[in-house]
Amino acid sequence: MKHITSRDNPLYKELKHLATSSQARRQAGRTLLDGVHLCQGYLQYRGAPPLCLVGEGAVAHPEVADILAQCGAPPTQVIVLPDALFGALSQVEHGIGLLFVVDTPQLELPAALTESAVLLDNLQDPGNLGSILRSAAAAGIKQVFCSAGTSFAWSPKVLRAGMGAHFVLTIHENVDLAALMRGASVPVLATSSHVEQTIYQLDLRQPVAWLFGHEGQGVADDLLALARHRVMIPHRGPMESLNVAACAAVCLFEQVRQLEN
Amino acid sequence: MKHITSRDNPLYKELKHLATSSQARRQAGRTLLDGVHLCQGYLQYRGAPPLCLVGEGAVAHPEVADILAQCGAPPTQVIVLPDALFGALSQVEHGIGLLFVVDTPQLELPAALTESAVLLDNLQDPGNLGSILRSAAAAGIKQVFCSAGTSFAWSPKVLRAGMGAHFVLTIHENVDLAALMRGASVPVLATSSHVEQTIYQLDLRQPVAWLFGHEGQGVADDLLALARHRVMIPHRGPMESLNVAACAAVCLFEQVRQLEN
Repeated sequence: MKHITSRDNPLYKELKHLATSSQARRQAGRTLLDGVHLCQGYLQYRGAPPLCLVGEGAVAHPEVADILAQCGAPPTQVIVLPDALFGALSQVEHGIGLLFVVDTPQLELPAALTESAVLLDNLQDPGNLGSILRSAAAAGIKQVFCSAGTSFAWSPKVLRAGMGAHFVLTIHENVDLAALMRGASVPVLATSSHVEQTIYQLDLRQPVAWLFGHEGQGVADDLLALARHRVMIPHRGPMESLNVAACAAVCLFEQVRQLEN
Repeated sequence: MKHITSRDNPLYKELKHLATSSQARRQAGRTLLDGVHLCQGYLQYRGAPPLCLVGEGAVAHPEVADILAQCGAPPTQVIVLPDALFGALSQVEHGIGLLFVVDTPQLELPAALTESAVLLDNLQDPGNLGSILRSAAAAGIKQVFCSAGTSFAWSPKVLRAGMGAHFVLTIHENVDLAALMRGASVPVLATSSHVEQTIYQLDLRQPVAWLFGHEGQGVADDLLALARHRVMIPHRGPMESLNVAACAAVCLFEQVRQLEN
């Protein structure tokens, strides 16, 4: 273990920049996993991280000690920080002082859309994105494709809301969704409140790709036109739409219900 | 219309306090509805507000003008503010400058739980609470009961996420959920990941009450013990749980599916 005690340490300054700047994270292709739960998930599904940061007060914590034992040798570098320095890197209030610094995946696009997937067009809210990733992972979806306008999937807020879903999914970002949809060999379904067909009328026991859009404006018209089916979730009350993450959960678990029954 | 131009105006100071302090809102029994969408919803379902605030730059906006025409006479007081003063009251960035100040409902508890409802135990996140209220309203639920530890339903963040659901629901706060459950004449269902029975095995064509809990800890054990059924949502992937608002959406719309089919 290495100790850093000064705010002027060059590595600490680099980490602080990474912790506080979304642009820095995108440019470096690196992000921070904040807290025990996310770090455990990373270890389980992705293995040892390049860099592990621990607050002095957390070194003896049993869950942290267990994680350090798993990644306390090269290639992982473990750095211990005074709690005040650690706190400036973490967004979790009253958390246990543990952070992994990991590389965000650089992925090749698959040649075609051939299995069940989630497509996200211009989705804005980090909490919604994380919730959708979590629902997709729980529903057995493996592939997620995000348009260039969608929130950065590897930001600390999205990671926290995803609760580890990032590590079991393949998340493609900056994807040309129109091109992907044109070449898809599975039907793409988009939800809309202006159609008659309901999700319950579709046969979802086959692979399908679900397309969800912007919180206010929904899916862009050009993409909606490329979808094989436009479907709605029937409502019984006066409210005409759901939060997009709630909508995604209903759709993905209707597919689970049909597959399980 | 009345104009306020000074930050030192006593009414403006009172409004600023209301806009920035959750405690002030609870004490006054008043809250702010921020933006055109929420104000339209309030007018549609609850009628004219006691107080309407408009930024100078928004007075001529067609949607705002339409709303002012509907509530521009007593008992509504309309106050026009310079945009800088208005901005300090609003949490919506780049919004259209319109706010209603309204009384939060003071409700009597119904004698017993006799119809479909949502019960929330210690739910923390305003976005989750708003999303659940929106899903409940869309699923045709009319009654929501929140424990004392649950986020304040009438805070600006919850109102924004609720997208008007507040105005079509009856939301009881600070409720003793254990007492309510003991006297319930409809079955109370709680979701749990440690049980065998799935939501798809239940007959949901009758009224039921759904109990959802804290984001991290779930429903408290004493309440879980009082639930008629503990049920799970089957998963197909390695993630073991959903975001609570996603979970609520899946449950509430499984009930809608059974009722509609």
